[in-house]
Amino acid sequence: MSDLLIRNVRDVSSGAPVLCDVRVKAGRIDAVGPLLTAEVGMAIEDAKGALLLPGLIEGHTHLDKTMWGMDWYVNEVGPELRDRIDNERALRARMAHDAQAQSLRLALEFLSLGATRIRTHVDIDTDAGLKHLHGVLATREKLRGVVEIQIVAFPQSGLLQRRGTADLLDAALREGADVLGGLDPQGIDGDAPASVDALFAVAERHGCPLDIHLHEAGAMGARSLDLILDRTEALGMAGRVAISHGFCLGDVDESTRARLLARMASLRVAVFTTGTPSRPVPPLLACRAASVTMAGGNDGIRDAWTPYGSPDMLERAMLIGLRNNLRRDDEIALAFDTVAAGAASACGFAGYGLGPGARADLVLVHAQNLAHAVVEHPPRALVVSHGRIVARDGVLI
Amino acid sequence: MSDLLIRNVRDVSSGAPVLCDVRVKAGRIDAVGPLLTAEVGMAIEDAKGALLLPGLIEGHTHLDKTMWGMDWYVNEVGPELRDRIDNERALRARMAHDAQAQSLRLALEFLSLGATRIRTHVDIDTDAGLKHLHGVLATREKLRGVVEIQIVAFPQSGLLQRRGTADLLDAALREGADVLGGLDPQGIDGDAPASVDALFAVAERHGCPLDIHLHEAGAMGARSLDLILDRTEALGMAGRVAISHGFCLGDVDESTRARLLARMASLRVAVFTTGTPSRPVPPLLACRAASVTMAGGNDGIRDAWTPYGSPDMLERAMLIGLRNNLRRDDEIALAFDTVAAGAASACGFAGYGLGPGARADLVLVHAQNLAHAVVEHPPRALVVSHGRIVARDGVLI
Repeated sequence: MSDLLIRNVRDVSSGAPVLCDVRVKAGRIDAVGPLLTAEVGMAIEDAKGALLLPGLIEGHTHLDKTMWGMDWYVNEVGPELRDRIDNERALRARMAHDAQAQSLRLALEFLSLGATRIRTHVDIDTDAGLKHLHGVLATREKLRGVVEIQIVAFPQSGLLQRRGTADLLDAALREGADVLGGLDPQGIDGDAPASVDALFAVAERHGCPLDIHLHEAGAMGARSLDLILDRTEALGMAGRVAISHGFCLGDVDESTRARLLARMASLRVAVFTTGTPSRPVPPLLACRAASVTMAGGNDGIRDAWTPYGSPDMLERAMLIGLRNNLRRDDEIALAFDTVAAGAASACGFAGYGLGPGARADLVLVHAQNLAHAVVEHPPRALVVSHGRIVARDGVLI
Repeated sequence: MSDLLIRNVRDVSSGAPVLCDVRVKAGRIDAVGPLLTAEVGMAIEDAKGALLLPGLIEGHTHLDKTMWGMDWYVNEVGPELRDRIDNERALRARMAHDAQAQSLRLALEFLSLGATRIRTHVDIDTDAGLKHLHGVLATREKLRGVVEIQIVAFPQSGLLQRRGTADLLDAALREGADVLGGLDPQGIDGDAPASVDALFAVAERHGCPLDIHLHEAGAMGARSLDLILDRTEALGMAGRVAISHGFCLGDVDESTRARLLARMASLRVAVFTTGTPSRPVPPLLACRAASVTMAGGNDGIRDAWTPYGSPDMLERAMLIGLRNNLRRDDEIALAFDTVAAGAASACGFAGYGLGPGARADLVLVHAQNLAHAVVEHPPRALVVSHGRIVARDGVLI
């Protein structure tokens, strides 16, 4: 049943709110407009004036790590990045944590809250091998046609540090990972040029896109970013490389930032942000002004790294809005864009949006407008994925 | 009916969780322990293992400004503090905004989410006079015995800038405001020594406590803070003065911060923080280490300043935790403290807590422990105020 007529939605996609209908045929949006007619056999739903949003997108998370729904993990970890990496790898080796069951559980929570597309980074390391990947691949298969999951093969413990990691990344991409991940070529690998070369070599072999975690701050981060941009340019990978976090864009001086953003824009390098309040972050308005695409994500959700995070992408948009001090309605619409069209563009998700022909992934919430939906992140009245109703009042069907 | 026995609460106040009962007599906690006996005529409630928390506290908000529940206010305001102040004063003069109805509406939302004590700043200026104060005083009367509201007479448009403001503050304190407010003696009033002198003169006349908004950054803020601390010391007002925001404590150099925090600790000057992600903020762990009491609050909620904010004080604790990068369970307990015992101490709310004799303001949530309650801020299963059940499953009774 992917033919559907939803009556009385509040549509704000063209500015002022109008009350109209949405007609879905064969899982795609057929028309959005006033007083559409139902076709024979079409299911009819009354939205009662609820606000119409496109399906939400989680642009950066770690489904394989989450302890969502498990017994509470008491966090007593040290404060450094290395502490967290080592603690987690050791913990995962000894605890009964099932990446398949957990990624499925969290992906379904995302779905119930209106997220129908997810980019997830999956740990690949020489202790675990491809174990976590296999779990998330199984979840991806299970949810095919309901939640679209894009998998990044992610060397969480570094690429050069532990011999054999590059081969594992190769294997991960052969076995179905969509994107190659990277991590702090200087801060973790200790040799930015060598690390970036090794990473791009894997990407070239597979012709796959890249999404590189860059936590490095200030001048160190800027240098690594320049090295990444150099290779992106030299290898003709414009539009195929993205940076996650990119904290250095939040704390370098303004002229360096302007130069880096201009390079990123011309090479179509998107940036994924969590809007974390405790670190410098790429400033949203500066990125927009420079035509750099920005997408939003949680990063980890309730795992050995952090107890925070939520599968509610409207709440994430709120946090990104708060972090960037976006108070005006027109600015908050830009925060929303990071979990909607901006994220679709950054991840390369096709058929996105509310236009005719787009995949019918829809969310209805009781809110007056986009800014209201973001700051209040109200319960999801209805979630439609691929033209089918999958959740009502927050409960999966 | 303020005699009550709540069975099967999860109590974490002494570390490890234990299942026990809470007995309430005449609106106060009589005992917390295993297998308590009910007395004749006592209502009995089964908590079914829900976590027991003390009533939550909102330490810094502006009930009189909120547009909560009204038609959405489209924010198109300029970016400067002055833009926001002037926009709001003009807006309030022309729009139909009723401080009484709105403060009541928001206070009841706070109550439904477990906040039973609120410190609210109320605008006093030469355009509005005491109009907003009268509204909030009426709300305070209406909610007496249910929500305890502490009123700060707040010169939102400056003290020296608009002649007659000091007289209005005098009048506000005579008419029932509990605390005298202040605002950026240099940044807004343009003359820190004169502004601070004028403010403390009003406080001295009334023998009332002070709570001063200090948005001023860096060296300017540090100078104003020193002037405030000088007068606190000279006038023997230790323990009677608090700073709201105190952004300068987040961006001065470490030795200046250490010196300021040491002075604040010795003069028992508390700091109220929102944990705003877009500004430097007083670092929670440094304040704790220096024995400076920290309390949490929203600041404005859905008003002409900001669309953000929520009457859920567990969500505020989460935001303060996120802002301060508190990930360990023991650290998240400190974030919780800012909306609980820390706020009670900073505001001077008496009879707070879960010990025998404390006012029976209780909140039950389905969470495994304090950190879980903060990061998830789950629905409130039960709220008890002054020994009476006032909300169940988020709905006021």
